Amino acid sequence: MKNFIFEYRIPWVETDALGIVHFSNYFRLCERTEQEFFNYLNLNDREIYLPRVHAKCDYKHSLKFNQTARVKLSIQEIGKRHITLDYEIWNVDDDIISAHCTIIVVPVDKEMKPVNMDEYLLDKLKEYLVQKK
Amino acid sequence: MKNFIFEYRIPWVETDALGIVHFSNYFRLCERTEQEFFNYLNLNDREIYLPRVHAKCDYKHSLKFNQTARVKLSIQEIGKRHITLDYEIWNVDDDIISAHCTIIVVPVDKEMKPVNMDEYLLDKLKEYLVQKK
Amino acid sequence: MKNFIFEYRIPWVETDALGIVHFSNYFRLCERTEQEFFNYLNLNDREIYLPRVHAKCDYKHSLKFNQTARVKLSIQEIGKRHITLDYEIWNVDDDIISAHCTIIVVPVDKEMKPVNMDEYLLDKLKEYLVQKK
Amino acid sequence: MKNFIFEYRIPWVETDALGIVHFSNYFRLCERTEQEFFNYLNLNDREIYLPRVHAKCDYKHSLKFNQTARVKLSIQEIGKRHITLDYEIWNVDDDIISAHCTIIVVPVDKEMKPVNMDEYLLDKLKEYLVQKK
Repeated sequence: MKNFIFEYRIPWVETDALGIVHFSNYFRLCERTEQEFFNYLNLNDREIYLPRVHAKCDYKHSLKFNQTARVKLSIQEIGKRHITLDYEIWNVDDDIISAHCTIIVVPVDKEMKPVNMDEYLLDKLKEYLVQKK
Repeated sequence: MKNFIFEYRIPWVETDALGIVHFSNYFRLCERTEQEFFNYLNLNDREIYLPRVHAKCDYKHSLKFNQTARVKLSIQEIGKRHITLDYEIWNVDDDIISAHCTIIVVPVDKEMKPVNMDEYLLDKLKEYLVQKK
Repeated sequence: MKNFIFEYRIPWVETDALGIVHFSNYFRLCERTEQEFFNYLNLNDREIYLPRVHAKCDYKHSLKFNQTARVKLSIQEIGKRHITLDYEIWNVDDDIISAHCTIIVVPVDKEMKPVNMDEYLLDKLKEYLVQKK
Repeated sequence: MKNFIFEYRIPWVETDALGIVHFSNYFRLCERTEQEFFNYLNLNDREIYLPRVHAKCDYKHSLKFNQTARVKLSIQEIGKRHITLDYEIWNVDDDIISAHCTIIVVPVDKEMKPVNMDEYLLDKLKEYLVQKK
């Protein structure tokens, strides 16, 4: 396994009148995957705030109600003041890629002021990357 | 005019795969109406937190993309520790009622501890009710 | 086990500026639970449309980011033209009840016309109830 | 006025536990603006389906509850099989830019098959562009 994997069943509320997942919900799915990744690394107890400065998705094939999405998260870049995360979202049922997204996050404190990246977070991410090689 | 009125155009994202507004979005529409009502009474500058303890909707006729909802807010009850708000949601295009909702809110501080209702808020609401008679 | 159980980790997007789950998201959590219940009964392949005619929640204790909600679904009533579903939502971390919701659904066809309940659905639900006794 | 302008008051539900608008909601705000732009051009009666193939946002300054966003939509490119739309989202209260987004849409029929762009839509957009020069 080269990526962190998260699977997610599409709920009714995320579909729209064309019967497909609304494009904005792909960004939310990326964030759910990040949350589970951080849980996997035991990072969610810490007060880490990482608002997004950039978010991008390319949509390939739509997802529908009750289909299962498999999200493959990979770390693209770790800087002192940003992390770039890459997400491939696949339809498990037919093994077709649904979307490809990239998100850049930056560390801030609770008052939204930019800070250096949490050292513990950095260590955990680097440790994870070494294991994955 | 006996009620406070708020009109709202249904966006694409609030529809679901049946082509109608998702039932949860009616509660959000009530809250948008409450927000505009509080703006009308100049109340939103104050740090007033009113989480909901009860929310209820009866659904009559569905709303669709780009239809205009007219929400009629009325104050049903004002207590020391709660306000009961009533919402009728109409479809402006065909003048048919879409839903009828009731929401009960209680005052808390920023740490979510129950407090007495803000005096200024109470005065404003009572003043509004007198005007409406 | 007397109820159908679904567990759900609170994502960031469902919190609001008070740091708690927005009240409308409880209704969506009930619907997610219903979806998994229908998957458990192998019902989601069928074209069954069950829009809500009534939805109600009483809120007791708020849920926060990354806490796990445990939803206990029970069937309260099965009629020819409606099903009443009951949901208790618990905070797994501290074993405190967070909300109690009731939802009534009615069967319609794809054009939103009321129809009799799908026979296969009824059988499955009754079968489930017998097993639970 | 060189752009189509849409103003929008930030509702409570779009904030998150950091007290700012969740990044996914910017994409929804773009779509609301597109809807009002299409209403302005009398295009929403037609069965026009334009799913997104690309969506991107750069976030500059966060928006908060009850602030007013001013969205400036401009058409960046019109092709036979796509339209590129550009959105600047400003905070009206302090006249600071909040985000800059780009969205590419492609025409499909109700079964999600790619089709040529609706001729009437194309004419309306070109007519609009001529007026704006």
